[in-house]
Order: sequence, then C-alpha cells, then structure tokens
Amino acid sequence: MGVRTPKQFCRVLERPLISYTLQAMERVCWIKDIVVTVTGENMEAMRSIIQRYGHKRISLAEAGATRHRSIFNGLKALAEDQPDSKLTKPEVVIIHDAVRPFVEEDILLRVVLAAKEHGAAGAIRPLVSTVVSPSADGHLDHSLDRAKHRASEMPQAFLFDVIYEAYQQCSDFDLEFGTECLQLALKYCHRKAKLVEGSPDLWKVTYKQDLCAAEAMIKEKISQEICVVTNTKDEESVGHLLEEVLRNELNCIKVASSDSQETRKLLSILEESSLPLLYPIVVVLVHCFDFTSVPLAQRMESLVWIRELAKKVKGRNILLSGLLLNYSQDEWKLQESLEQSAAIIAALVKERNSALAGQLLVA
Amino acid sequence: MGVRTPKQFCRVLERPLISYTLQAMERVCWIKDIVVTVTGENMEAMRSIIQRYGHKRISLAEAGATRHRSIFNGLKALAEDQPDSKLTKPEVVIIHDAVRPFVEEDILLRVVLAAKEHGAAGAIRPLVSTVVSPSADGHLDHSLDRAKHRASEMPQAFLFDVIYEAYQQCSDFDLEFGTECLQLALKYCHRKAKLVEGSPDLWKVTYKQDLCAAEAMIKEKISQEICVVTNTKDEESVGHLLEEVLRNELNCIKVASSDSQETRKLLSILEESSLPLLYPIVVVLVHCFDFTSVPLAQRMESLVWIRELAKKVKGRNILLSGLLLNYSQDEWKLQESLEQSAAIIAALVKERNSALAGQLLVA
Ligand SMILES: [Mg+2]
Ligand SMILES: [Mg+2]
Repeated sequence: MGVRTPKQFCRVLERPLISYTLQAMERVCWIKDIVVTVTGENMEAMRSIIQRYGHKRISLAEAGATRHRSIFNGLKALAEDQPDSKLTKPEVVIIHDAVRPFVEEDILLRVVLAAKEHGAAGAIRPLVSTVVSPSADGHLDHSLDRAKHRASEMPQAFLFDVIYEAYQQCSDFDLEFGTECLQLALKYCHRKAKLVEGSPDLWKVTYKQDLCAAEAMIKEKISQEICVVTNTKDEESVGHLLEEVLRNELNCIKVASSDSQETRKLLSILEESSLPLLYPIVVVLVHCFDFTSVPLAQRMESLVWIRELAKKVKGRNILLSGLLLNYSQDEWKLQESLEQSAAIIAALVKERNSALAGQLLVA
Repeated sequence: MGVRTPKQFCRVLERPLISYTLQAMERVCWIKDIVVTVTGENMEAMRSIIQRYGHKRISLAEAGATRHRSIFNGLKALAEDQPDSKLTKPEVVIIHDAVRPFVEEDILLRVVLAAKEHGAAGAIRPLVSTVVSPSADGHLDHSLDRAKHRASEMPQAFLFDVIYEAYQQCSDFDLEFGTECLQLALKYCHRKAKLVEGSPDLWKVTYKQDLCAAEAMIKEKISQEICVVTNTKDEESVGHLLEEVLRNELNCIKVASSDSQETRKLLSILEESSLPLLYPIVVVLVHCFDFTSVPLAQRMESLVWIRELAKKVKGRNILLSGLLLNYSQDEWKLQESLEQSAAIIAALVKERNSALAGQLLVA
C-alpha cells in the first residue's frame, strides 16, 4: 500500500488518523458508547492515543483476524451476555471504519433512523470506475452496468439484535472471507438494508494519496475554524485593513489588537487549553510601521523576543511567527504590503509547517 | 463534485491538471500522436495550454456529449478515412483519462503489448469498497463478491481496427449510456480484453480530495527531482554538513557553493530554461556565519539584495529565499542550526508556496 503503519495509526499533522475519526464520533452527543477493536500488538498504542487526546466514551475490544471477526468482537463487547462488560446493549449500533475521519452527524443520523425503520442501513456512493468481472485466465468476462450498482461505504447502522443475530448465525466462511455487513443482515435475518446516499467525504483512507488528501482536507477545515492574528496597538487602523484583505484568503479570521503583554497572556491561555493537543495552532504577530522611518534591521532586532517565545511555545504545538508590515504613507505600497501580508498569513495558517515557526517575515 | 471547473482544467501548482497528464504521455517516446478531445467552449483554453507548456505531438478533436461519443471522435481523427487529418492510423491506440496524471510508462507498455496479443486490454485495480446492487425502492438487493470483481481503470489499449469497428457498429444506446470501452470490444468484436493489474497511482481525480492528493503527490515527486541549494563560499565545510543533514529530509539534494555573482548566473540560466514553466523552482541561498561575531540584523541588512532579486525572479516562477545559518563554534549549537536549516529548506521545497518567497529566514 506504500504505507507501512496500519493506516488508522498514520499521523496527520502529527496526530494519528484514528483520533480524528474518534473526535468525529464524540462530537455526536447521542452516541453513547464507542467500541474500538484493536489488535493485541496495538492495544497499548491505542490506550495511549485515547489518553493523550482525551477521548471519552471509548471501550476497547480485541480485533479478530478478519474484518468480520473484529466487528463480531466489538458487538460481543456491547451484548448484555458479557459478564465483565460495563457497556449496556444498545437499540441501534453504528459500524464505521477508523480510516473514514470525515463522517458527519447528518449521515450518521440518517443511517440510524433508517436502521430503526428497516433493521439495517448503509451509506452508498456512485461508482467512480466501472466494475468488471474477470475470467479465471484474467480476461474480461463481463462488465457491470455502472448505473445499476453503487459502492457500499460506511457508516452502516443496524438494530443491535438484528446484526448480533446475523453474526451469531453466520458461517466460518462468511467470517473469514466476507466483507459486507449488510449482506449478513440480509442472508441471516432477511433484512433488506436501506441504502442511504452519502457525500464524497465518506471516502476511505486506503492509499498514500488518500493520506495526502486527508491531511490537505484537515488543514483546510481547521483553517476555517480558528486562527488568531494579533496586531500591535501601534496602528489600529491597519488591523481593519488587513482583516479585509485576509478575507480573500481565509474564512472566519479575527484580527485582534494587543501589546506584547496581552500576547503573552493569550499564548498562556492557548498553552493551557486542550486546543494545541488536537492541531498545531498558528499565531502571527503583525508589527506595522513605516519602513522608511525605522531601519528594518533595527526593528527586527527589537523583535528578537518573538523568536525566543516561539521556541518556547513550539513544544506545546503553537506555531508563532512575526510579520513586519510596511505601513507606508504611499497608498499603493501599503496595499501591496497588505496583500503580501495576507498571502503570508494564509500560507502559515494553511500549511501549519512547524519548521517555519519562529521566523520574522517581512511584507 | 465540490469543484466547478472541469477537473482536467483545475490548477495544481498553478498548472492545469491535463498538462501533467500530457507530460506523462509525451515522456513515452514510442507514443506517436496524442489526440485530445475538447468541448467547443474549452477549445481555445486547451490550445493555449498546449502552447504555454510546449506540449508536442498533440492534435485536438471535438468532444461529444458523452464519454463514448468523445472517444469515437478521437478515433475518427486517427482513422485514415478522414481527408483533412494529418494523422496516420496507428496499429494500437491507447485510451486514457485527462484526470489520471500519474500514469507510468510501465503500465502503458503492458496494456499495449497485451492489446497487440489480445486485441484489447485495460488496467484494473482491486475494489476499495464492496459493490452493491440496489432494488428500485433503494434497498439492498444483493452485494457482489469483492474477490470476484475489479475496478476497471485507465489506460486501456486496443488494436485500432478492433476498437474503431466496435464504435462504428455500436448502438446509439451504447454511445449514450455506456461507460466501458472494453465492453464495446467484447460486444461488437468478440475480443475478451486482457485485464492488467495496475498500481494505485492510476486513480482518477474525481473529487475535491483527489485534487488535494494530486497536488501533494506532485509536490512530493518534484521535491525528489530538482532542488538547488547554494551556499556562499564563506564556509565550504558547512555545505557538506548541511547536505548530510538534508538527506534525512529530502532525496537527491545537491548543495552547491557559489558567490553572489554565480548565484545570479544560475538564476539567469533557470529563468531562461523551460523548467519554471512546469513547476515553481525553489532556490535557497544559505549564508553561514557565527551569529556571535556579526549582529544578525547587520548581516540581514547586507542581504537585502536577496529580497530584491526574489521579487524579480518570482514572476518567472522561481521561488528564491535566503537562509542565515548559525555557524557556531559550539558544536551543539551548530548541529541545532543545521537541523533547523534542513527542516526549513525541506518545508520550502515541499510546499513551494510562493507567498513565502523572498524572505530571509534564520536557523
Ligand atoms: Mg461492510
Ligand atoms: Mg472505459
């Protein structure tokens, strides 16, 4: 697969992929318990992920040798007949993949409601490629009509009793070679699953390119969530101008004015919060002055504290940079500097590359 | 699809995706002619892409309303019976998608050889998801055995006479609703296509996450191809040390020593070459000195020419930055600075963000 670590443990912005998926599930308040199946050799790693990222409502169950055996173990952990389990048997159970981190509450709700009504439900997507059936000697036997078929994705949801019975009934062959839970519900419980159209976000992180895509999508998502850009009180009006130009590059930016005292306070608050555990937080300190009035080098020298402070907070996953903005009297020069500042800030926020933290940049 | 522009015209590192795919085809010297089908409204845009990026061996044909009609038009352009065509009818024709830029010579050769032998051949991949067949009311009718099916990908190759006859024979219904060329060769010319296992790189850029992945994959690829890092002659030995540390971050790096005269010459050569047309070229000028011997601000002031030069070459898609490396007597400090330098250079090379060009960075 071009990737050696199991994909759910591959790191995206330094954080294991599975932690993003768990976060997506935890955000949904009506999901009561989350059971993660993990192989023995990864059990300790999984425990430390849960602890480090503060995941809640998680129970662990031992993974089996195949997909179906793992799911069965997860269901057993939820079934009432397990004496040592603290979990209670749910009415509906969702089955999801650790490598589909972009699942939204909307599709979870839709499969759960459909499962309540029909006993089983699963997300589907249109086929991206035509599906063919090869003959034994590797030639085309026939191709399937793309319009009549769909890709079965996750999440899926089931009445617990339906899917648990299906797993209890099903053959060793199914447990060994099967891939489709909906098929088990059909075969052993005669429940024709409701198929629910999902969004492209449900895609499964399978290959190296999927990991790249996941990282890019996550970077884009968090760039729209939180970004703090502070500005010294020197020139308050520049803050507003910068905010305007920045809106062309990023959403939901707030440009806050502060002096170095307030900046340090802000950083302390961030350091003590749980935010930088989840993602690197980008903070850009913008210093505005007319480059013709003070030599750039002299001003940079006076801002060496930013480099020092950046080193200190980098260990806490806060990426601090300084930006010197040319607050020129020349309107054209000012506009150019504002636009370049916005482009630099957008680059820092979007790429979140820790190697570039601590620099004093010039626009 | 989350993307408004047709995907083949979406820009990856400022260059339309289709230009990457054309480049992948042009690299293969035994491909004689390349016919691109384009809709009338995109014809001019396509012509200017071909001119701007210097693509060779390309002919344009008008796209049809469906996939099969477009392919048929492309084949007609290659058929001898077209009076105004400068193209000659080939023995074998490859059919490929503009949105699969990562196709390698190896798989092209394999499908072509198989087509010569069997009349038709196409790349396949294992299914990532189970395929299901929905009933009319949106319930699961049955699911397909994943082990017995494959995804049909591109490239495909055909004896020209086989596929051309198939298209001439085929029904309007096929032209309108069909998706699979291999199926046409089977149905109308009784050729059971040879199915050839392809690599994950063949994936089709379909959704927004695929564009993100394509950009990341292209960035990674070119980071292994060309990166120029120059070093002033001040401290030659640092060049070697840096080269060593850099190897942990990037492949195929050459650290060249040069003075500012030589640097300008190198930049002129790059500017005049066709390289920056294809990708942004990253050049990092590393200046080594002991930060305790010369004040950093003073040294930075003496390097303002880098900012000016960077502005000039940025228009030519060359991303120039300066990097000040602390050539400290303290071995531990030197090592720290070398490692930070390597991380910064790797970030600049991997991300190729033009917003960060022209900066003087400090390690
Ligand atoms: Mg399944
Ligand atoms: Mg096809």
